[in-house]
Amino acid sequence: MVKVSVIGATGYAGAELLSILIRHPQAKIAHITSESHTGKKISELYPHLRGICDLTLESLSDIENIGKDSDFIFIALPHGHAMDVGIKLEKFPVRIIDLGADYRFSDVSVYEKWYNVPHKHKDAKRVYGLAEIYRNEIRDAKIIGNAGCFTTASILALAPLVKHHLIDANSIIVDAASGVSGAGRGLKLGNHFPELYDNFKAYNVAHHRHTPEIEQALKDLGGEETIINFTPHLVPMSRGILATCYANIKENISDDMIDAAFQKMYGAEKFIRLLGRNSYPETKFVRGSNFCDLGWHIDERTRRVIILSAIDNLVKGAAGQAVQNFNIAAGFYENIALDVVPMYP
Amino acid sequence: MVKVSVIGATGYAGAELLSILIRHPQAKIAHITSESHTGKKISELYPHLRGICDLTLESLSDIENIGKDSDFIFIALPHGHAMDVGIKLEKFPVRIIDLGADYRFSDVSVYEKWYNVPHKHKDAKRVYGLAEIYRNEIRDAKIIGNAGCFTTASILALAPLVKHHLIDANSIIVDAASGVSGAGRGLKLGNHFPELYDNFKAYNVAHHRHTPEIEQALKDLGGEETIINFTPHLVPMSRGILATCYANIKENISDDMIDAAFQKMYGAEKFIRLLGRNSYPETKFVRGSNFCDLGWHIDERTRRVIILSAIDNLVKGAAGQAVQNFNIAAGFYENIALDVVPMYP
Amino acid sequence: MVKVSVIGATGYAGAELLSILIRHPQAKIAHITSESHTGKKISELYPHLRGICDLTLESLSDIENIGKDSDFIFIALPHGHAMDVGIKLEKFPVRIIDLGADYRFSDVSVYEKWYNVPHKHKDAKRVYGLAEIYRNEIRDAKIIGNAGCFTTASILALAPLVKHHLIDANSIIVDAASGVSGAGRGLKLGNHFPELYDNFKAYNVAHHRHTPEIEQALKDLGGEETIINFTPHLVPMSRGILATCYANIKENISDDMIDAAFQKMYGAEKFIRLLGRNSYPETKFVRGSNFCDLGWHIDERTRRVIILSAIDNLVKGAAGQAVQNFNIAAGFYENIALDVVPMYP
Amino acid sequence: MVKVSVIGATGYAGAELLSILIRHPQAKIAHITSESHTGKKISELYPHLRGICDLTLESLSDIENIGKDSDFIFIALPHGHAMDVGIKLEKFPVRIIDLGADYRFSDVSVYEKWYNVPHKHKDAKRVYGLAEIYRNEIRDAKIIGNAGCFTTASILALAPLVKHHLIDANSIIVDAASGVSGAGRGLKLGNHFPELYDNFKAYNVAHHRHTPEIEQALKDLGGEETIINFTPHLVPMSRGILATCYANIKENISDDMIDAAFQKMYGAEKFIRLLGRNSYPETKFVRGSNFCDLGWHIDERTRRVIILSAIDNLVKGAAGQAVQNFNIAAGFYENIALDVVPMYP
Repeated sequence: MVKVSVIGATGYAGAELLSILIRHPQAKIAHITSESHTGKKISELYPHLRGICDLTLESLSDIENIGKDSDFIFIALPHGHAMDVGIKLEKFPVRIIDLGADYRFSDVSVYEKWYNVPHKHKDAKRVYGLAEIYRNEIRDAKIIGNAGCFTTASILALAPLVKHHLIDANSIIVDAASGVSGAGRGLKLGNHFPELYDNFKAYNVAHHRHTPEIEQALKDLGGEETIINFTPHLVPMSRGILATCYANIKENISDDMIDAAFQKMYGAEKFIRLLGRNSYPETKFVRGSNFCDLGWHIDERTRRVIILSAIDNLVKGAAGQAVQNFNIAAGFYENIALDVVPMYP
Repeated sequence: MVKVSVIGATGYAGAELLSILIRHPQAKIAHITSESHTGKKISELYPHLRGICDLTLESLSDIENIGKDSDFIFIALPHGHAMDVGIKLEKFPVRIIDLGADYRFSDVSVYEKWYNVPHKHKDAKRVYGLAEIYRNEIRDAKIIGNAGCFTTASILALAPLVKHHLIDANSIIVDAASGVSGAGRGLKLGNHFPELYDNFKAYNVAHHRHTPEIEQALKDLGGEETIINFTPHLVPMSRGILATCYANIKENISDDMIDAAFQKMYGAEKFIRLLGRNSYPETKFVRGSNFCDLGWHIDERTRRVIILSAIDNLVKGAAGQAVQNFNIAAGFYENIALDVVPMYP
Repeated sequence: MVKVSVIGATGYAGAELLSILIRHPQAKIAHITSESHTGKKISELYPHLRGICDLTLESLSDIENIGKDSDFIFIALPHGHAMDVGIKLEKFPVRIIDLGADYRFSDVSVYEKWYNVPHKHKDAKRVYGLAEIYRNEIRDAKIIGNAGCFTTASILALAPLVKHHLIDANSIIVDAASGVSGAGRGLKLGNHFPELYDNFKAYNVAHHRHTPEIEQALKDLGGEETIINFTPHLVPMSRGILATCYANIKENISDDMIDAAFQKMYGAEKFIRLLGRNSYPETKFVRGSNFCDLGWHIDERTRRVIILSAIDNLVKGAAGQAVQNFNIAAGFYENIALDVVPMYP
Repeated sequence: MVKVSVIGATGYAGAELLSILIRHPQAKIAHITSESHTGKKISELYPHLRGICDLTLESLSDIENIGKDSDFIFIALPHGHAMDVGIKLEKFPVRIIDLGADYRFSDVSVYEKWYNVPHKHKDAKRVYGLAEIYRNEIRDAKIIGNAGCFTTASILALAPLVKHHLIDANSIIVDAASGVSGAGRGLKLGNHFPELYDNFKAYNVAHHRHTPEIEQALKDLGGEETIINFTPHLVPMSRGILATCYANIKENISDDMIDAAFQKMYGAEKFIRLLGRNSYPETKFVRGSNFCDLGWHIDERTRRVIILSAIDNLVKGAAGQAVQNFNIAAGFYENIALDVVPMYP
């Protein structure tokens, strides 16, 4: 059994991580932490876990002992806090999977600009935790910067086309919508039930922090600087992300070349379901699972390709992806604890 | 009092129309029709109208008598059926406001291509019923082809920029999302409650029939052929449309010129609320009202403008707009029966 | 024009009150207040009011001037605060409609016990503001304690049967469910969107403060001490209350006597729609309106009557009822500004 | 491996059953049937199963061969159809778990009266499939009539109190609310998304068919004829049932005796979580799981006990319970394939 700990277990991503790790046959949850709820049982905060997981929340102040007593540490803290943990654990053999943004960027100046905080752990060896693209790097990584939710949906949608140079990278527009769990468990008026119910809105237009993360991966894939538009929306539902991605198809690229690019890149992937051209992923078809469902459409009138990408933001967009990365890094089968049937209806 | 009739009163648009006409101090509802429910009271089909409107549904077979007994006729039938009514009423002085697509296109071949039915009433004098743009034409029209729901949100968002040539018309992408009432009252699995709840999806990518309608208006405004991408999505809510529109800003166009274009075109409009640059319309802020709320954002990195446009699909996107057109055509103040406070929360 | 002010305008009930008063042809809104948002425009807090009501929020510290400058004052403050206002306004001719609980109880010891605060204004002349039952008392009242939301639905459902002694008063059980707006705009985890979505729960079982309010009215109607069970539930929706009320039918009472009691008591009421025996009110059929829809069922096996009562908690359950009381007290037609078509779907 | 087949696999209960059986390590799905979709893959009808279960739907006309080729047969057909299957399979050793009502009643005349169809298989050996109460009978049963959804929540809530004679059985009132999946996948206007969204209603008052099923179990438990009131409501959500049950506490019964009764009956049950007195189960805390969460309240004023019972209607209320019964009948650990963490949020 591999010993794992979860730092920041009381947010939605942390709780989802526990739900998955509980059913992992080769992981043993050693420690879970929360600064605001130290000493409470996790099942007091999440009554759905009563009788299933009644572990007591510890404090981060013990992080070195937690580090010594763990093989893997998952961090689900707000950005800016994971790097403090990372620095303190540097000398221990424990490996880190950070669900936040601190270790996602190879160029820390991009992080500092978009997140507006100085990076304290610039020299950390780290890899970007999106398994379908960076699997080999993940295998031996000390620190894995787990990909974000919108970014996962967007990058997986665009990767085959960017990698094979079938689209004009600077024409890319990603218009995405997320369920409200993506905004976390912290209270704010905009996520108060009566405000959001029967309501739909955009937010952070032209400034959402997932933008440079998508651009970084697309640049890695296509080999050229890529600037995109990314617009997130909030859907009055709990879970799910659908990314609708637009790009201009390059000249002399046939429709079949587009189909083939998806097939080639993802044909053997366990968690990517290719629905094919002219198909429609729906967020509910992947709810609760680690799948990313992909469909694409070619508009003959404009010669744009429109790719639809659906994930569960808390699973493939956060905790499921983290466990997928953990499985890879620990040398397990990639789908252990993740071979879940989506919950429908 | 002006006598009005509603042909096809039992769909959502028809019922909303009744709700508005009931409170119109200068309109008297003369006849309402339904082929599948002839002889029933409308309040049997829509119990929220009990004690408010208990009119009996008649059959279309009497259309000539209805025509003689009405000053205005609203048609809320599926496309392809309004033109039959239009032909039969040609000889009567009654004026027609069609909420469907039959009279929306100046070039009927576009209609025939996208709707895949022959047009039977090609020589009908008609105007496009989007008051903020075609107000003068509406005043004396015999037949008004009321603008569609997605189209209203999209055209109003883009009109100032297209008219003043501030954006590259062929770079336009409209990504829009609608509540489920927009799909009508007819039963289908996709709109069955458990299927749609906690779910989000796109549909009719690259083929939605509102596409050529938007293009027609943009061509009228900008003077050049315009081909766009339009992608509709379904939101698990009852009412509301948010259109998120993207376009490349032309060279040498300043941000202030964009602000000024909106101000100039809509500064005096009663039903358009300009929230300004960097603002966020939400569908719930216009729910139940005839408002179109507009906000826009300029992405300095990509030099694209993103315009957000929110309407209630059944009001400004259908019945409210129809009454606005009626008010103009009948010579009333434009906001009679439409000065409603949006319902929040 | 009658001058009205709203003390505590930024909660949901206060905002709904503004929405109704705005369309009241004989009321002029003089002052609105908020302690936490003094100096802001109401439309900054409720953007659906942009361009419709841009009044500036004042502070309560000016209450005496506000009192002098108003004919009627609506109070929408948390319980315990209205009586401070009431005391300060005692010497002015202004009349008060309190939407909270401070003036609802004729026996202040009941208030003190259930609300756990001392009552400071025990000798205030006040009437209970449920027009269908206390209309005559409301006409000349100085202070009207507007009925609560669950209480309105429950009392209206049971009043005819209690008044005519058709049921065993001590067998009454009220099982009710409310949309989330009833819990107010204040943030709490239980009303955070992802927690409540796709969720249903009871709360305050056997201890909800609307219990003694229902009992007081039933005692007034039936002439005997009445102890009931009342259980509220929270529905994942914005608006609406459905009360399902159970009682044992007394011996020798026929089904027709039950029907007749409803007819006799409510046959002439504008805001009560009697759907009749074996019918099913739905909250959406009254949404946005001041209606209370009533249906009832007789279980032959148990000889219990089950009464279903639907209201919009923010309208007939709060702001609409307040305006109805205002219309009565000011000598206007009772339905002015309240003859609204429910919003459906 | 035990071979299992699902007759009627395309309803919600059938699909949920497949989701559970897929992850059952000792069951192999042999056949699935559908009359309206024979020849299609189940994943065409339920795209969330793509790549997970792509079995082809067969026709019932082959039932004898299916019977021969199966150890267990799950039937998820509308009532009245399972008995035809039961008769045809009588001669085969295959065992039957019927998710419908045909085999739930020991007195078939009760079935015939409430379901209004003649029973064709009166002499079938059958047991009522509610494991916590009839576990021993289930072990060797040929035919198991799986308990209904509302009935499961209601009986589990009331069983300890009825069994120990702590409450007056004829004072029982069950007021329950269900998510819309309980109404099935068949289209009807009442379950059309825009009709139900932001809406709450009761249905089948005093006539719901789960009433006699609850009464039968309570009579078994308490030893006396029991007549109750049962009122179902529809909640605008996908999944979940909350039953709120009321009963008069008998004289000389202490609060502790009530607590003890729950503890004694359910202390060792895997799928019943006793939250204790004064606690609040929520449907979302059991979503996707086979748990029944129970809390209870004692009203000192009325000496009534109010029990709250939450289940997932498709799991403990249908498919999960069926697999629990299957595990018992097949001699497996009772929680195989059912030890699922509820999905939250």
